[in-house]
Amino acid sequence: MCQALNCAGASIAFEDPTLPECPAVAEMAGLRVNRIGVDRDGLLVDDLTDEAAAVVTPAHQFPLGFTLSAQRRLQLLSWARRTGAVIVEDDYDGEFRYDRQPVGALQGLDPEHVVYTGTASKSIAPALRIAWLAAPTHLVPALREVLRFDETHVNVIDQLALASMIRRGDLDRHLRRCRTRYRQRRDRLGRAVATQLPGARLSGIAAGLHAVLELPGPPSAEQELLDRLAAHGVAVDGLSSFRHRPQDSPLGVVVGYATPPQPMYDGAVEALVAATRAYCADAV
Amino acid sequence: MCQALNCAGASIAFEDPTLPECPAVAEMAGLRVNRIGVDRDGLLVDDLTDEAAAVVTPAHQFPLGFTLSAQRRLQLLSWARRTGAVIVEDDYDGEFRYDRQPVGALQGLDPEHVVYTGTASKSIAPALRIAWLAAPTHLVPALREVLRFDETHVNVIDQLALASMIRRGDLDRHLRRCRTRYRQRRDRLGRAVATQLPGARLSGIAAGLHAVLELPGPPSAEQELLDRLAAHGVAVDGLSSFRHRPQDSPLGVVVGYATPPQPMYDGAVEALVAATRAYCADAV
Repeated sequence: MCQALNCAGASIAFEDPTLPECPAVAEMAGLRVNRIGVDRDGLLVDDLTDEAAAVVTPAHQFPLGFTLSAQRRLQLLSWARRTGAVIVEDDYDGEFRYDRQPVGALQGLDPEHVVYTGTASKSIAPALRIAWLAAPTHLVPALREVLRFDETHVNVIDQLALASMIRRGDLDRHLRRCRTRYRQRRDRLGRAVATQLPGARLSGIAAGLHAVLELPGPPSAEQELLDRLAAHGVAVDGLSSFRHRPQDSPLGVVVGYATPPQPMYDGAVEALVAATRAYCADAV
Repeated sequence: MCQALNCAGASIAFEDPTLPECPAVAEMAGLRVNRIGVDRDGLLVDDLTDEAAAVVTPAHQFPLGFTLSAQRRLQLLSWARRTGAVIVEDDYDGEFRYDRQPVGALQGLDPEHVVYTGTASKSIAPALRIAWLAAPTHLVPALREVLRFDETHVNVIDQLALASMIRRGDLDRHLRRCRTRYRQRRDRLGRAVATQLPGARLSGIAAGLHAVLELPGPPSAEQELLDRLAAHGVAVDGLSSFRHRPQDSPLGVVVGYATPPQPMYDGAVEALVAATRAYCADAV
């Protein structure tokens, strides 16, 4: 997408925090990266200026887990229309919302200003390396040219298998099964935090495959916390690793609850709780 | 590889004829493409000048099907050592040689001047989209940086499955079975051409999954020939589509003999012969 925009030297906005690989790809394509903060309503749209594009995660901010509010959505579209910028909607886990019907895609509100991007990484498996996008008409010729060789990287058998899964309704059935299971996992994690970790808080909406575990303590304690968790066999990411300025991050970890096999999940939650309690006891 | 060479504006040599996608990729990376002719001994190494790199198919020139001769190999390596250029060895089908043991890789003669590239496209299936390379030590850091995101396109499950096939010897067994089958197909095609198509000639060494069917007639007759073949349900590529200047191509088609399912193969050869005879009868 960065190459198709064909505006090397222009700037592109990313949420802060975000998955660090995304702005890195933009920089490799010759774009300047502007970091825009987020709050519980999503991207701070007022902080956008003359960027050629803005990459957002409206359904489920990554990693904080909030939804872009209705007002911010309108504000963001209005910015794009006014400036001619392109919004890239990274809908990496929109299939999984547990507390209500999923919010509609931002792209549906204005298909000529928003590029919708989806992936099979969360709904099936990241190992597949299959993703897709729906782009404004005016970007299609440039995208075709850029993708002329890159799209040939994608396993063709997998694409045919996925197409067949979609056509037969198997993907829908799979998603329904997964929704139930992941919701139970999220609830299990939420209960454990609420009842066993006083002072800690699970934040982000009930959606996707991850939640943020916020803990009392200074940002500088993150490494100690991660070491303690690792010693208990718990692999999580520190919240600061998604921040442009790690020192500005509150203390917390991003807990992916889809990874452990089903029979191991309770044990994984218990290990997380035990390690976090041990850390908190030390920190007091 | 073109990006890792980090020499936009420099020139890179490709064989002429060649797969047109290869020089197109180099041009997208900002390199200037020099076309170097080939004869029955492979690349005309004397025509190389100040290119930063040369891409060659030493085991089986694509599409003409000759082998880079021993003398040309030494000449090519000597050019690379003298000028500091990188040789990219595209070994797309080196697993399949039917008349003798495969010639060793050029890369084995001078691993610090040659990048070896291989693929599962011919040995297993093109749909897999798996390839690999062995690069000179000095290029590894730049390659790692360039591949940082591109290598993440490749299905991880497929990579693990291929690694397991290699480890258990299953790939070797598969290749032995395929060699027998493809050799029989090549022989069958050769017999049909020798006995049923006077004036035509099957050229290229007994290797790989394709051969060139040379026909009497002017290059300008290619489209008529292809139309005639298509009318008989035969899908082949005209030789001119691999030439930088299509008008310089002798009349011929590239016959891939691995594609038809086994029970259809005899019928496919018969259709090729019938269509070619019909074309020749008209042309007289």
